[in-house]
Parts: sequence; C-alpha cells; structure tokens
Amino acid sequence: MHRKLNNMNIQTENHHFANRVQNVPSSFIREILKVASNPNIVSFAGGLPNPTLFPIKELEESAARVFKEKGMLALQYAATEGFLPLREFIADRYKHRYNLDISANQILITNGSQQALDLIGKLFINEGDTVLLERPSYLGALQCLSMFQPRFAEVNLEPDGINTQGLESQLQQNLAKLFYCIPNFQNPTGIQYSLEKREEVARILGNYETLIIEDDPYGEISFTDETFPPLYTYLPEQTILLGSFSKTIAPGLRLGWMVANPEIIKRATIIKQASDLHSGNLTQYILQDYLTHNNLDSHIRNIQSAYKKQCDVMLECLKNEFPKDVSFTESKGGMFTWLTLPEGFSSRDLLQKALENNIIFVPGDTFYACKPDFRTLRLNYSNVEEKAIRKAMKKLGGLIKRYDISEVLS
Amino acid sequence: MHRKLNNMNIQTENHHFANRVQNVPSSFIREILKVASNPNIVSFAGGLPNPTLFPIKELEESAARVFKEKGMLALQYAATEGFLPLREFIADRYKHRYNLDISANQILITNGSQQALDLIGKLFINEGDTVLLERPSYLGALQCLSMFQPRFAEVNLEPDGINTQGLESQLQQNLAKLFYCIPNFQNPTGIQYSLEKREEVARILGNYETLIIEDDPYGEISFTDETFPPLYTYLPEQTILLGSFSKTIAPGLRLGWMVANPEIIKRATIIKQASDLHSGNLTQYILQDYLTHNNLDSHIRNIQSAYKKQCDVMLECLKNEFPKDVSFTESKGGMFTWLTLPEGFSSRDLLQKALENNIIFVPGDTFYACKPDFRTLRLNYSNVEEKAIRKAMKKLGGLIKRYDISEVLS
Repeated sequence: MHRKLNNMNIQTENHHFANRVQNVPSSFIREILKVASNPNIVSFAGGLPNPTLFPIKELEESAARVFKEKGMLALQYAATEGFLPLREFIADRYKHRYNLDISANQILITNGSQQALDLIGKLFINEGDTVLLERPSYLGALQCLSMFQPRFAEVNLEPDGINTQGLESQLQQNLAKLFYCIPNFQNPTGIQYSLEKREEVARILGNYETLIIEDDPYGEISFTDETFPPLYTYLPEQTILLGSFSKTIAPGLRLGWMVANPEIIKRATIIKQASDLHSGNLTQYILQDYLTHNNLDSHIRNIQSAYKKQCDVMLECLKNEFPKDVSFTESKGGMFTWLTLPEGFSSRDLLQKALENNIIFVPGDTFYACKPDFRTLRLNYSNVEEKAIRKAMKKLGGLIKRYDISEVLS
Repeated sequence: MHRKLNNMNIQTENHHFANRVQNVPSSFIREILKVASNPNIVSFAGGLPNPTLFPIKELEESAARVFKEKGMLALQYAATEGFLPLREFIADRYKHRYNLDISANQILITNGSQQALDLIGKLFINEGDTVLLERPSYLGALQCLSMFQPRFAEVNLEPDGINTQGLESQLQQNLAKLFYCIPNFQNPTGIQYSLEKREEVARILGNYETLIIEDDPYGEISFTDETFPPLYTYLPEQTILLGSFSKTIAPGLRLGWMVANPEIIKRATIIKQASDLHSGNLTQYILQDYLTHNNLDSHIRNIQSAYKKQCDVMLECLKNEFPKDVSFTESKGGMFTWLTLPEGFSSRDLLQKALENNIIFVPGDTFYACKPDFRTLRLNYSNVEEKAIRKAMKKLGGLIKRYDISEVLS
C-alpha cells in the first residue's frame, strides 16, 4: 500500500523540465481518490461537497434564461476581471455579512479560489522568498505555491487558531513575504480562529510588511450563529481575501474570487489575462442569474443543516467508538474533522488496515510543508451518508482499539 | 493618443511584486478594445469570432439535457485531465481529419489554449531559456511566456511560413528550449505554412531537442479545401499541439486542449491541478453533449463561408482602395489580414487618424518580441459586417493615400 500510493516520483526523463516542476508535490489525495471509485468503499478521503444539495433545477432555469436572453454575450470573449454584476453581488454580500466596504474593482473572478493562489504566487513569490503556513495547511496551497520555489515555514495550529507566539517568532526570524491561512473551518483540521485570535493575529501582522492570504472557502458553511470578522477587516491594505462558490453552489462551475486593494487587483488582472484570458463567461452569467433569482441565504442554510447532521454523527462516533486518547477537532463548520492518534501510531499504517475494511481517509502527513506529524489524519463527512458514517466510524474505531504499536515499531 | 494608449506602465509600488511581473507586457489590444465599446466605432482591432454564428439554441438544448440527466456529476469536482468523452471526441477528430493516432491520455483539457501556454511555461521554461518565436507572433503568447523570464529570439515569417534559413541559423546559435508557432492562419499575420515549409521545418527541428509548441486555434477555419498536416504529424514526440473550441464553438466556454506524449501530459496534469484543479466541468459536459447531438462539420462550414465572405470584401478593398505599395496577406482562413505600409509610415500615427474617423485596428509593433516593425498593422474581419468593412476600408485607404510622411519624420 505504502509503495503503491507513494509511487509518484518523477519518472526517467525524456524532457528537460523546468526546475520549478521538481518542487511540486503530487497529490496523495488524488491517488487515494482513484481507489475511491470502487463503490464498496466508504470514503472519508475526499473534499467533495454533497452533490444532492446542488441547486440543479434552479441552475437549469438560469441557464435557459441566459441562453435565451444573453446568449451572444455569455458565449463571447469577456473582460479578464469577470462579469461585473457577479462582482457587484460579491461586494454586496461582504457589506451585508460583515459591513465591509468592498467595491467591484477590488474583486477579480478566478477559476475557483485555487487559481487565485496561482496568481498570487506569480505576483509575489521570488525563488527563496519565505511563505508562512499554518501547520498543517491546505495541500492544494502547498502544491500551487511550491511551483514558485519559496521557502516554507510553519506555525502550529491550536484549537482556537494559530499559535500567536510562534507566529511572532517566525516573523521576527524571517522576512516573510506571505502568510497563508484559512481562519474558518480550515482544511484539513476543521479549526476556526476565535475572535481573540483574529485580533491578536491582526495586531502582530500589522507590524510587518507580510501580506496575508486569507483563504475562506468554508466560512459560509457554519453550524452556529457565530460569525467572526475576516482578517481583511483589520488589515484591508495588507490582506488578500479569497472566496469560492464551490462549497455554496457547485465546484463544477469553477468560480471563485480574490479581494484586494485596487493596485493588486489591477496587476493580478494582467497576470490572469496572460494565464487564461478570463474565467468561464457562460458559467458566470448562469451563476449571476441564479443569484438574482434565488435566495442564497436559504440555500446555504440547507447545506449548513445537512452538514451539521453529518458532522454530529461523526463526532458522536469519535466520542463513543474511539479510544479516549485519540484527539479530534469538534468542528463547528466546513467539511472536515482532524484526528491525532496516540504516540507511536501511524495513520498510513491505519489506512492500510482501513482499506482492507473498505474505508479510506487521508493520512495527515501530506498536509505538512516541513515537519510532518504521522499520527494525524483527515476525515471528510460532507459526502458520506449518516448511516454509512456510523457504520464505517465504528469499524475505524475498532481498528484503532486493536492497533498494535509494536508492529509499527518493529 | 499615443500617450493615452501607452500609459500602462507599472505604477508607484506599494507592494513587493515578484521579478517576473516586471516582464509581462500589458495588452495594448486590451486598451484599444476599451475604446471599441463606443458603438459608432468600426473595430478591426479585436480578435473576436462572430457571435451571430454561435450555436446558441443547440447549446441551450445540450445544457438542459446535462442538467436533467447528469446534473450532479457535471456540477461536482472532476478529474484534472478533463471529461473523458470530450477528450475521446478530440482524439477521434484528429483521426478523422489527419489520420493521426492520438489517444485520450495524450489530451489535457485546458481553459482555452491560452492556459496551455501557461502550463507549458511552468513545465519547461527556466529563467534565461531561449524561446524561438515567429516574427511577428501572437501577443497572448508573448505575455504568457514572458512571465517565465525566457530570452526571446525571432525568426521572420514569409508568405508561405517561417524563413527556414533563419530558423536553422537561430537553432545553431541558441540552444532553444521551445519553438512557438501558429502554422495555420497565424495571429496576427493570417499566414499559413505551405506543405513544403512544414516538411522543411520538421526536417530541421528533428535535428535539435527543441520542443515545438504548435498552436492551432484557426486550422478549422479554412476558406479552401486544402488541409496540411500539423507539424505534430512529423515529430509527435517533440511537438505539443494546442487546440481550441473558441473559434469553432464559442470562446465563452473557455475550453481548449493540449496534445503531447503521455509523459508530458502526466506532468502537465499535475501542474494544472496545482494551478486550478480542473477546467469548467459543467461546460465540458455541455460541449460534449453538443458535439454528440450536432454535426460539427456542417457548423464549421457555416463559419468558414461567412468569414470567407467577410475576408473577400476586405481583400477586395485592399486591392481597390489602398495604394499599391501597401502589402498585405491574402488570407485563406482564420480571422485576420496583416498590412505593411510603405517605408516611412507609422501605423500608430495612422491609428490616431483612423480613430478620428471612428475606425480602429491594432498597430503591428505590439506583436514583436524583439525588433518591432512600426509600419505593420493587423485587421480583423470576422466581427465586422460586410457593409461596414467596405465603408471603413475605403476611408482607411483614403487616409493612407493622404498620409503625409513628413509629419511623422518631423
């Protein structure tokens, strides 16, 4: 199993690939997901939203309207910045949710927020620049940013957000160019920064020139009524805030955005034009029509309540079926929880045993840029039915209870 | 006018942008197109397909079918490689058009062929690597590839394709990593390589390790029954062939592809995953459904005959209304013709006079990576009605006839 899933190293080369290519870690998750195509497998490995919640009928109606009323415009080349009414909708929503004054010219539409990371890498990272990351961090960010050959440095995550002492000490040691964070229901850990942590992080970063990349794909998928202000609120000139429709509407549209000051957006737009001219124009028209004709808040409430139920089942199993020395995040939103197994355990070994029981998850070590913790693992609940969660979690708990450390140590 | 359109230099900087950003030329065309939003202006400046030919009704029907039958799949995250049936369609078409054996695992779906250029830059270009270009070349390629800080070298284009002596001499002087070319109805010149040129170019390049980037967005838009084999046919291991649905179906879908050997595609797929996970999944499903339920050949024949008429009118005007010492491409396909004004003329000056007459075009100097020729200009015919072409071309011819070189020289 180890060998099979790890066998992603660079092949004998017939081509002179660029140096940057050597640095891109391939996605372990991608390999695991290939295994997940087996229908007998219960997969906690993916990061997929629940497709039964996609507003298919409503999007179909919007598509029909767009083709009928604006077909020639929607199918033509378009401005790199993105469809203005869509950018205005996003700006309005920040006003409505956080009372933030963001204008449409501070918003660039991207192919999911993943592309925003690529544009940020292109815009800011010279080889050897320091990029500060949460420890652990989003694998897609590690992959994307590593193409620009930065030096990564990590700061530990705690249950209420980043360790601020560690953050300050890293900033003092390194002239960090970027600090990448996911303050709401982080991937992979499910952790949300508390209000106090946000204030403290903003206070610390305000003393440095480090640019904050605040990735927020999960913020709307909250299981409580608490909402905390984005770091952008505290340091708008110093923060690039990323958002996405992948978790609230559908990822197959490939639409996200970045918010920043107009100078950064102007530059990012030139870079995006060079990269792919513009994001899907037809899908932007369809999405904008959908947002005009439907109540996004009530749609998101449906997602919140469905994921909360799935999460509750998973957390209940973790409490009742798992050994007490397995620690985990009591997620209050998003799509993941994060486990730390007791000393001496290896989640890659556990994966091997789980696979024999038709269960998969992602071993946590893939989410570390520097110093992996092999006892960790990520569990996704949004794309598994409650009954299947219950059954598979019981099995997984049993595997951990019967886990023999001596096998690993030997 | 000069000042206004040129004023795209980098602003006073509040941010520490990466070095690569300094190298990206901003798009002069983009600035001109902003002027083009004035409805009184006849624009030969754009590179837009004619939207009256978009298969809107058929795409609407396909969208409805996709939402009804495959909504959950089409709206979910998907494989980075692209939708397999779409890749199979593309492979089949190469078989059908050129008797080429290309398998689906040699095809990666991209956001238009523009994104393929970005992936190629990421995969192959180290700072300082030599990239050989046709002189002049596609501005979008100059913009995209310049992000990777190569050294550009140019080889002159002749009416039947690249100057092969110049190509050989450049290859001997430089260890060129890439040779970028558009053998069919090139943007900006409209030139198509002859069969002899193709054979000669392939013979020459076969002696070097230089990778050929063969961009072919216009090959299907031919006004004659002649088709010439892609360079890929001669050197499949050494060529990356790019294609696009932007000119045959609609650019607003943002769907193109790259063809290469499986090793390159595998690497490009990892790089694309890091860049934006995958291209629009919904649009891939809609397009694939369209291609299954409609006759692409007969749709393309409509485009060919419409553009041929528009081109014929433009060429007729060039013959009858322009001074004899203005040379131009007698385009046999694609969307552009290319003019070279007599010695002493400046197309930027001509643009200023043209603008006063509500006519715009793109001065040719923007299409040169190294040594610009300021007497050249690009004219697009695909997006202007025949009557408007006739009227505006007559005016433009008159402006050239009355053009006073001494004003420029003074």
